[in-house]
Amino acid sequence: MSDNPSLVLRGVEDVVHEQRPIPEISGDEVLVEVKKTGICGSDVHYLVHGRIGDFIVEKPMVLGHESAGIVYKVGPNVKHLKVGDRVAMEPGATCRSCDACKSGRYELCPDIIFAATPPYDGTLGRYYKLPADLAYPLPDHVSLEDGAMMEPLSVGVHSVSNLGGFRANQAIAVFGCGPVGLLCMAVAKALGASRIIAVDIVPDRLEFAKKYAATDAYLPPKFNDGESKIDYSRRNAETMRSQLGIEDRGAKAVDLIIDASGAEVSIQTGLYIAKSGGTFVQVGMGNPNVTLNVSLIMTKELNYKGSFRYGPGDYPLAIGLVAQGKVDLKPLVTHRFTFKEAITAFKATRAGKGEDGKGVIKAIISGPE
Amino acid sequence: MSDNPSLVLRGVEDVVHEQRPIPEISGDEVLVEVKKTGICGSDVHYLVHGRIGDFIVEKPMVLGHESAGIVYKVGPNVKHLKVGDRVAMEPGATCRSCDACKSGRYELCPDIIFAATPPYDGTLGRYYKLPADLAYPLPDHVSLEDGAMMEPLSVGVHSVSNLGGFRANQAIAVFGCGPVGLLCMAVAKALGASRIIAVDIVPDRLEFAKKYAATDAYLPPKFNDGESKIDYSRRNAETMRSQLGIEDRGAKAVDLIIDASGAEVSIQTGLYIAKSGGTFVQVGMGNPNVTLNVSLIMTKELNYKGSFRYGPGDYPLAIGLVAQGKVDLKPLVTHRFTFKEAITAFKATRAGKGEDGKGVIKAIISGPE
Amino acid sequence: MSDNPSLVLRGVEDVVHEQRPIPEISGDEVLVEVKKTGICGSDVHYLVHGRIGDFIVEKPMVLGHESAGIVYKVGPNVKHLKVGDRVAMEPGATCRSCDACKSGRYELCPDIIFAATPPYDGTLGRYYKLPADLAYPLPDHVSLEDGAMMEPLSVGVHSVSNLGGFRANQAIAVFGCGPVGLLCMAVAKALGASRIIAVDIVPDRLEFAKKYAATDAYLPPKFNDGESKIDYSRRNAETMRSQLGIEDRGAKAVDLIIDASGAEVSIQTGLYIAKSGGTFVQVGMGNPNVTLNVSLIMTKELNYKGSFRYGPGDYPLAIGLVAQGKVDLKPLVTHRFTFKEAITAFKATRAGKGEDGKGVIKAIISGPE
Amino acid sequence: MSDNPSLVLRGVEDVVHEQRPIPEISGDEVLVEVKKTGICGSDVHYLVHGRIGDFIVEKPMVLGHESAGIVYKVGPNVKHLKVGDRVAMEPGATCRSCDACKSGRYELCPDIIFAATPPYDGTLGRYYKLPADLAYPLPDHVSLEDGAMMEPLSVGVHSVSNLGGFRANQAIAVFGCGPVGLLCMAVAKALGASRIIAVDIVPDRLEFAKKYAATDAYLPPKFNDGESKIDYSRRNAETMRSQLGIEDRGAKAVDLIIDASGAEVSIQTGLYIAKSGGTFVQVGMGNPNVTLNVSLIMTKELNYKGSFRYGPGDYPLAIGLVAQGKVDLKPLVTHRFTFKEAITAFKATRAGKGEDGKGVIKAIISGPE
Repeated sequence: MSDNPSLVLRGVEDVVHEQRPIPEISGDEVLVEVKKTGICGSDVHYLVHGRIGDFIVEKPMVLGHESAGIVYKVGPNVKHLKVGDRVAMEPGATCRSCDACKSGRYELCPDIIFAATPPYDGTLGRYYKLPADLAYPLPDHVSLEDGAMMEPLSVGVHSVSNLGGFRANQAIAVFGCGPVGLLCMAVAKALGASRIIAVDIVPDRLEFAKKYAATDAYLPPKFNDGESKIDYSRRNAETMRSQLGIEDRGAKAVDLIIDASGAEVSIQTGLYIAKSGGTFVQVGMGNPNVTLNVSLIMTKELNYKGSFRYGPGDYPLAIGLVAQGKVDLKPLVTHRFTFKEAITAFKATRAGKGEDGKGVIKAIISGPE
Repeated sequence: MSDNPSLVLRGVEDVVHEQRPIPEISGDEVLVEVKKTGICGSDVHYLVHGRIGDFIVEKPMVLGHESAGIVYKVGPNVKHLKVGDRVAMEPGATCRSCDACKSGRYELCPDIIFAATPPYDGTLGRYYKLPADLAYPLPDHVSLEDGAMMEPLSVGVHSVSNLGGFRANQAIAVFGCGPVGLLCMAVAKALGASRIIAVDIVPDRLEFAKKYAATDAYLPPKFNDGESKIDYSRRNAETMRSQLGIEDRGAKAVDLIIDASGAEVSIQTGLYIAKSGGTFVQVGMGNPNVTLNVSLIMTKELNYKGSFRYGPGDYPLAIGLVAQGKVDLKPLVTHRFTFKEAITAFKATRAGKGEDGKGVIKAIISGPE
Repeated sequence: MSDNPSLVLRGVEDVVHEQRPIPEISGDEVLVEVKKTGICGSDVHYLVHGRIGDFIVEKPMVLGHESAGIVYKVGPNVKHLKVGDRVAMEPGATCRSCDACKSGRYELCPDIIFAATPPYDGTLGRYYKLPADLAYPLPDHVSLEDGAMMEPLSVGVHSVSNLGGFRANQAIAVFGCGPVGLLCMAVAKALGASRIIAVDIVPDRLEFAKKYAATDAYLPPKFNDGESKIDYSRRNAETMRSQLGIEDRGAKAVDLIIDASGAEVSIQTGLYIAKSGGTFVQVGMGNPNVTLNVSLIMTKELNYKGSFRYGPGDYPLAIGLVAQGKVDLKPLVTHRFTFKEAITAFKATRAGKGEDGKGVIKAIISGPE
Repeated sequence: MSDNPSLVLRGVEDVVHEQRPIPEISGDEVLVEVKKTGICGSDVHYLVHGRIGDFIVEKPMVLGHESAGIVYKVGPNVKHLKVGDRVAMEPGATCRSCDACKSGRYELCPDIIFAATPPYDGTLGRYYKLPADLAYPLPDHVSLEDGAMMEPLSVGVHSVSNLGGFRANQAIAVFGCGPVGLLCMAVAKALGASRIIAVDIVPDRLEFAKKYAATDAYLPPKFNDGESKIDYSRRNAETMRSQLGIEDRGAKAVDLIIDASGAEVSIQTGLYIAKSGGTFVQVGMGNPNVTLNVSLIMTKELNYKGSFRYGPGDYPLAIGLVAQGKVDLKPLVTHRFTFKEAITAFKATRAGKGEDGKGVIKAIISGPE
């Protein structure tokens, strides 16, 4: 049992299975035997580009950060966990002493050790160590696959509930029907949304969103010849308004806009659609520089907020919503792979389609046997 | 005493003195004899362009909305005012029954009757009627000129205190040293700022800002040949950081950014400068479409908020700060004109320089005699 | 059709049916033909005592304030309503110009005209006039009885959502299983509570609460001989903690306490039970002076808040939750009376039991035919 | 240099000078040579009663927790401090992994190690170790005595700014003119209060408060024969209202009430005086059980909050306000003692009067030489 097979990214397009040493744990840590890991767009991005913004893969790095597993070893100071406990693993260990950590926004800690963000190794191995308070016990009726999905669900919780301040009987529009967009819709539904508008340019994804959580689906029109992005977005917003009966104020207004696409025209359209005095949370990352209609932000006094990972309380709320049956994660897991098939899993996620020809929403890799 | 001489904008570049009927007041209103009116950039903008965004001057409109005066007549239901009271006049009368009005954000009322915003007449006449609760009595030691200045000061209060949530011992950077920028600095100083950084491309304005309220002044560099705006802004931000010792976190971070310039490079630079987890309030209006670094907004979880006019509590706080001596408005009034000279006053404001050759910060027009 | 039969309280224990003039409406008002009215504890209190605190019935007053009806006449300025619309009636018309009204807390308006609070007439007549924005259209599938119940439901919404800040996956304890307590539980359930603890000294009421919305029911023990209230409350809290597995912190803590009983021992017990850093909302009115353990409030940094009626957004949220099927009001209406039987309805509410021998939760009186 | 002389409480009324081992520090800690320590009421309370509530002195304990000193040793991971730095010492080391710590309310950490709260030793020795982030560097112009005073000032900051949400141009009333009350006034003044009302039953203390920070001083009347506390408090409030021109709403209302006395009649009076919709922060600890007028809390929708120690950001704000010259701590230090005279210092604080006959506000003990 001394081996720790891991999936290591050595460079662009260069990922291999390797043995890694088993981590030693300190008094407040636990060692988890990783059982289920979801593949995230950022894992694929590192594989393809070797970097995300200023985070550059400069030495071999274990991939993976959406994981759940079984506690294998507990540090002597750990009280709330024991060997054998099934846990969801929050993958960012923070310094706990900077202003961000102490004031309740640890996602902004500059010294965060985040799984599979260079230079830190990720969770796609047999063992992963983490501070015990980041290992959340799963209720018996919540599966390990669900446990792995708590990571992207926490992104949705952070965006919709924490930053978006979304409450019962409000309306939301979510641009982008990938995993994060879908999970934002799931959170909004769990919180009692009166209306959930899904937006995507792929009809199949819209259809899925509608079955899964959305009350309305909107397929944007094509660009006209020579039309600028900002002109397109204004036209798109007008179409969307009339088609869905959206207004700037009152019961037909959209209280919260989430962009989970990163696409410039989605962001632009969202600003037109947003309620006067409303909130817009940006969670999808695309091109860094985007042209926005700042006049709209001013005259409607919009609150345009960036969302980054998750903070205090987000994992517990994610687990709570699933445990209560208010969020169903199962429909999102479309493909499953063994650890040995991990590279195939990445290929499928990258292609957006499995060898079975079906669209991939989330591929889950089981831990090494 | 039945006449009501007024300054009327009839069309682009066409402003005249005209007689207007004296308004009838209802039970909850007061009629004020206007004594002092400041000229705002928006007044000049209507004069030059005949419109601001979707607000278009389609019929003759009295100009002016930054005013103070003396109560001339009170409606039968009015209790807190009497004839002869000196009052600052809040120029936006709202519907009081929409969601925005009832939930504490009346600046977003869609039916607001705002002075000198088409189609509503402004305050540059002998008489102006308004709901009594929008006429705020001035303490004896606060002048009518100060009273007129409460309008732009309220814009500063709204941006810095209300939307910006600025508190004692925080640091602020204000881009743009026109009247609104200077008043934002004055508010920050009154609220106990630890640091107030003024930014402008005109050295004289920076010098004034430093004498008036800023602790630091920053003059951005010139563009390099062929440099894009976003490249310039990144370089500008780096220069600003090293020159002023600005960091992303902790005691050297800038908690609140205000853009009172409307310039694209100011907004871009401000996003680079902003503290991780900080707030950015947009109060200066320039080109509607601006290219922003959305990645910065995300990774720092910035809160980018639009500011529009002022809401509940802003006028009272503005008056309170002046009454307590925490804000000094006098240095900002650089030029004074009689009502007959009103057109000259507009010319000076438009030129940014009076006939005396001195820079105009704020020109005040006295009421008709 | 010129008559307006009304139920008038002339003095203590003196209530009669009388004709009253039909109110004239102004431009922004509507006249509603009242169809359903719930009886509230405060109506009964006025009947029995002729006063509530400083509100004293000094001249004959029409009773009733929990009503819904059909629009009979609309003022010329009213746009969103027409004759025949079915509406829930919010019974407090505020001044709209004081600080409270303008800052989003109109429930604190000192000049509020509240139905059946002296000296203002209530809704138990054929016609009642109110400002149009306080008449909320009911969706087709929401009954007029439900419409009348929006009033007490709004009290619950105000306490639990607005003041209590209750969110999904939180735990709540509600002391008192009368109509308001039950509706607080219903709101908590609709908002996604993880746990709803009902407390009452009447087993039948607890049983109902459990069927209706609670997840747990707690029956406090009897007093020991000579035991002081504060000693009893500490013992009661300890019993409650061990019986229900309540802790001060973490997943087993109670985030929000609502006292809807007004009983001193309930309030005292609630403070012991409340989570460290938690919130306690007082909505039940009992004896004005109550002995509280202020040390607990300090060392746990509790937030003890008074709740009074409802404010902006509460009626819309109440209606939204019912319209979405998240709150079911029907089980609470246990007794129904014609207008002629109104005095019998009061008797039943007062006795807490109908002539059928069943406990009264809410008695609804139909409008005059 | 291996000795660590300390002031040790062995039991009720039994305090001695003793040698203690010099603490070993871990990687993230610093060892501080304590130079100045203020005596707090709680230190005296432990001396006289051997306990405060459930905190019981069961084994010898070093006293003192209001301290500043000079860094003597730094752990290997500490970056922002070096030997010789002058620091204010925040005396509560928290677990950093519980919900309270992670959500920005570390004052509620159940595992806090707080200096001189049993069973943990305090700061009245030569050396004290603490986590490096709790040792705040003092600017050159801020003295070590000021540094020791940051502890009670942080209590004021926590109560007035953090929990009280006090902002510029608001009015405050502070009941109790001891050190904490005076520091609450100093904070309110620094934040731009329009009015600061000091209340105390000792005229000399009121006079001092007025010179120090208050704008108004109020001396409550004596009890009438047989008058109950609640009757007295109502009468007291009425007298206070008419004498000072206090109203329930608007510009003459008191936005924030602080009770720093712990006296039942102060709390009762404060509730009568508080603004409709206002906040009341309880920071003075007296008898645990207090009779409050809960009806007032309800009808005015007051927010009655307990304050306990201080949380994230409070020490930095305290230091910032002193560094900027907005709070002057010097007038509060009325008596100074050497370490050898420490027991005399306790006597003086307990008597409220020094051997010089002057009233003690704060006595400071210098560190062992």
